[in-house]
Amino acid sequence: MIELGEDMLQELKEEVWRANLMLVEEGLVRLTWGNVSGVDRDRGMFVIKPSGVAYEDLSPELMVVLDLEGEIVEGDLRPSSDTPTHRILYREFESIGGVTHTHSVHATMFSQAGVELPCQGTTHADHFCGTVPVVRELSEAEVADDYETNTGLAIVECFREHGIKPMEMPACFQKYHAPFTWGKSATDSVKNSVALEVCAQMGLGTWQLNAQQSGLPNHILDKHYLRKHGAGAYYGQG
Amino acid sequence: MIELGEDMLQELKEEVWRANLMLVEEGLVRLTWGNVSGVDRDRGMFVIKPSGVAYEDLSPELMVVLDLEGEIVEGDLRPSSDTPTHRILYREFESIGGVTHTHSVHATMFSQAGVELPCQGTTHADHFCGTVPVVRELSEAEVADDYETNTGLAIVECFREHGIKPMEMPACFQKYHAPFTWGKSATDSVKNSVALEVCAQMGLGTWQLNAQQSGLPNHILDKHYLRKHGAGAYYGQG
Amino acid sequence: MIELGEDMLQELKEEVWRANLMLVEEGLVRLTWGNVSGVDRDRGMFVIKPSGVAYEDLSPELMVVLDLEGEIVEGDLRPSSDTPTHRILYREFESIGGVTHTHSVHATMFSQAGVELPCQGTTHADHFCGTVPVVRELSEAEVADDYETNTGLAIVECFREHGIKPMEMPACFQKYHAPFTWGKSATDSVKNSVALEVCAQMGLGTWQLNAQQSGLPNHILDKHYLRKHGAGAYYGQG
Amino acid sequence: MIELGEDMLQELKEEVWRANLMLVEEGLVRLTWGNVSGVDRDRGMFVIKPSGVAYEDLSPELMVVLDLEGEIVEGDLRPSSDTPTHRILYREFESIGGVTHTHSVHATMFSQAGVELPCQGTTHADHFCGTVPVVRELSEAEVADDYETNTGLAIVECFREHGIKPMEMPACFQKYHAPFTWGKSATDSVKNSVALEVCAQMGLGTWQLNAQQSGLPNHILDKHYLRKHGAGAYYGQG
Repeated sequence: MIELGEDMLQELKEEVWRANLMLVEEGLVRLTWGNVSGVDRDRGMFVIKPSGVAYEDLSPELMVVLDLEGEIVEGDLRPSSDTPTHRILYREFESIGGVTHTHSVHATMFSQAGVELPCQGTTHADHFCGTVPVVRELSEAEVADDYETNTGLAIVECFREHGIKPMEMPACFQKYHAPFTWGKSATDSVKNSVALEVCAQMGLGTWQLNAQQSGLPNHILDKHYLRKHGAGAYYGQG
Repeated sequence: MIELGEDMLQELKEEVWRANLMLVEEGLVRLTWGNVSGVDRDRGMFVIKPSGVAYEDLSPELMVVLDLEGEIVEGDLRPSSDTPTHRILYREFESIGGVTHTHSVHATMFSQAGVELPCQGTTHADHFCGTVPVVRELSEAEVADDYETNTGLAIVECFREHGIKPMEMPACFQKYHAPFTWGKSATDSVKNSVALEVCAQMGLGTWQLNAQQSGLPNHILDKHYLRKHGAGAYYGQG
Repeated sequence: MIELGEDMLQELKEEVWRANLMLVEEGLVRLTWGNVSGVDRDRGMFVIKPSGVAYEDLSPELMVVLDLEGEIVEGDLRPSSDTPTHRILYREFESIGGVTHTHSVHATMFSQAGVELPCQGTTHADHFCGTVPVVRELSEAEVADDYETNTGLAIVECFREHGIKPMEMPACFQKYHAPFTWGKSATDSVKNSVALEVCAQMGLGTWQLNAQQSGLPNHILDKHYLRKHGAGAYYGQG
Repeated sequence: MIELGEDMLQELKEEVWRANLMLVEEGLVRLTWGNVSGVDRDRGMFVIKPSGVAYEDLSPELMVVLDLEGEIVEGDLRPSSDTPTHRILYREFESIGGVTHTHSVHATMFSQAGVELPCQGTTHADHFCGTVPVVRELSEAEVADDYETNTGLAIVECFREHGIKPMEMPACFQKYHAPFTWGKSATDSVKNSVALEVCAQMGLGTWQLNAQQSGLPNHILDKHYLRKHGAGAYYGQG
């Protein structure tokens, strides 16, 4: 059992390492501005990028392993400074398998502007079922107390208050900061970051062409979301 | 005869495979958001990308072959979910040889905004003879019935109602969705997708510089279109 | 003498070939939308890209050689359809050594919008001494008569009427069409196309930030232009 | 002692060479429009790119060494035409170790527009503690006298008059010109140029989405700046 478990964690480290490299390949990060993690629900542990290390210097062995209480289980390097945010999302959003944080350019514009992104078309509907919400900025007390943990809690609060299901809306804009996305796995969370960045870029341009754009009708939104994600999904080789 | 036919289909699979890779090389797609097909008119069959497969994992043998009734003739994988749209375009637009669907960023902005693209200059006139139309979104009944087939029918309806000739205007914006283009061949349909994306990007910027831009005078539009496409064309090595 | 001359033309073919490849490397062209030529003033001949050939398929031997009357001297392929425009520029602007035509995105926006680009800063002043002009579109008669030759004549007319010196302003926006640039050599004309594209992109964004931008004061324009181009130039290793 | 000193300079030449190549890799320069230098405070010398040489032709040995009076100590090539600006920054900002000058597209838009960039979000706060200032253009007399030296003096004047600390705000927009950044080292100054370019791009888009964006609250600005730069910094492997 333990050997099997260790094998699984080895696979997870490989996937998280590759998912972090995808950030560069997909043009979502500059310098060291992004991090991806993945969770092993059976063992109650997650794997995350070390802090401030250049992507080209990463390897699976340099990934840091933590338990869901935030204790480091394995790894010689300090984990990403955003680790407590990832931890809260894993603890509170029980169906997610991976988390991605980037400062991708257009999604960060929406975060800085504090502007939600409604579903303008099918590119959005293929990944996100509804409006991508803006999560409020933290208070002075929350920043002073535990900034990164409270960032995660503010995201959870936003989703609970508005009754948004995390797996139907695997993305948010942290106000004045940048996007967080999640998904079934580390890789899937990066794909949602790609989709969010592109939808944000399209969103700005769509409004520049037509400030009155009224949003995708619900019957098309549901169709696109469900052909990829519902019980009767028929996209891909599934 | 049969062997010759099979050779032709082998060539078509190669071309369609390469045309799908062009989507990546030309920056028209992210993730798996695009597909190209090509038709063999003599055999009444078309070749299309399999659904949800990463472009780098494609090979000519993985392409799916269907007849014009939509039955799979060859291939182990499920074809692109947009296959019924391609099929309708081949059935109704008899002069076309290839179809491309992407979510390229700027053309998708026009689709989402529901804004037509008039001919603003010669880049446009070299490929598209007139205004690129917006095809209406589908009704609730059309979505519930057969979304992808009805998407094709809505495109055909738009071109018939407005008397637009498909080979003179090998492109449209599907409202709230994204562009479709076509052409003499699979490769040619991708080139028209490149042209549409660039013209859409230029279109937005042109209006930002001059909201009153009046469109290319007809005598220049005709000149540019015809020097590439008319009987007396003298562009290229003919 | 003749052998020396032929060697020079060989060098020119190499340079023109490389200059055409620079169009791709610098992101100035898509598909086959651009061409570069260079002139040998002693022999009265110029070398230009063949029409509609993909850049990766070019080689120095495929370049076409013409005399300044427009007769093909050497080459198996049809020259660029814009060849008559290049010819007129060589004939009328006697100090230029190379010509570049592209449909680069931002410079084409200015062409389509019919908006001149004033000197907004030192990036512009390093290459262009003043406002980049818009050349008028051709009349119906001019298009019908000889479109490409008349395009060249319209550029020359614009510069003569406004007293603009071609080597101080090696660029223009052809209305509804796209930019033309020139320079001391084929390579230099491509560098001016790069500069024009970047200045056009910066120009749009500068106006979006500050619609009242007043233009670079003349004493700084002159300083920058002259430190690169004047008799006392001290930029580079010259 | 001398040999040790020469080894250090060799390392500095390598770093400055690599930092200049980073300009290309990070998309901050076109043609030869940018330069990086680094200083050896013990020896009172700085190393800078030669003027007008293509980045791919650079090597550590081609870097030019000058003392802080501006005399060339080593090198066969003419140093960057902006060398006197770098020299003044080293002389007056005693804590800096490297300087970068580029014409990166979005930062240059802010320079040309003469628009300051307030701190709109945490991407900015991670690098710059407050508003990136615009440094005034030079007078006719200053240009005629010694343009590049006076550019440096205008930057220093701006920072002194407004009480801005150079290591807390390692960037400025030179009006009608382009950005200058600096940092602990040559490499660090390039990273600040990357951050400035991205923040400028985000800044324009943020205002397009929300013209009233009010800026990052101070308690979050301080948190982000200090978690990377303060005595209690916990970002990276420090």
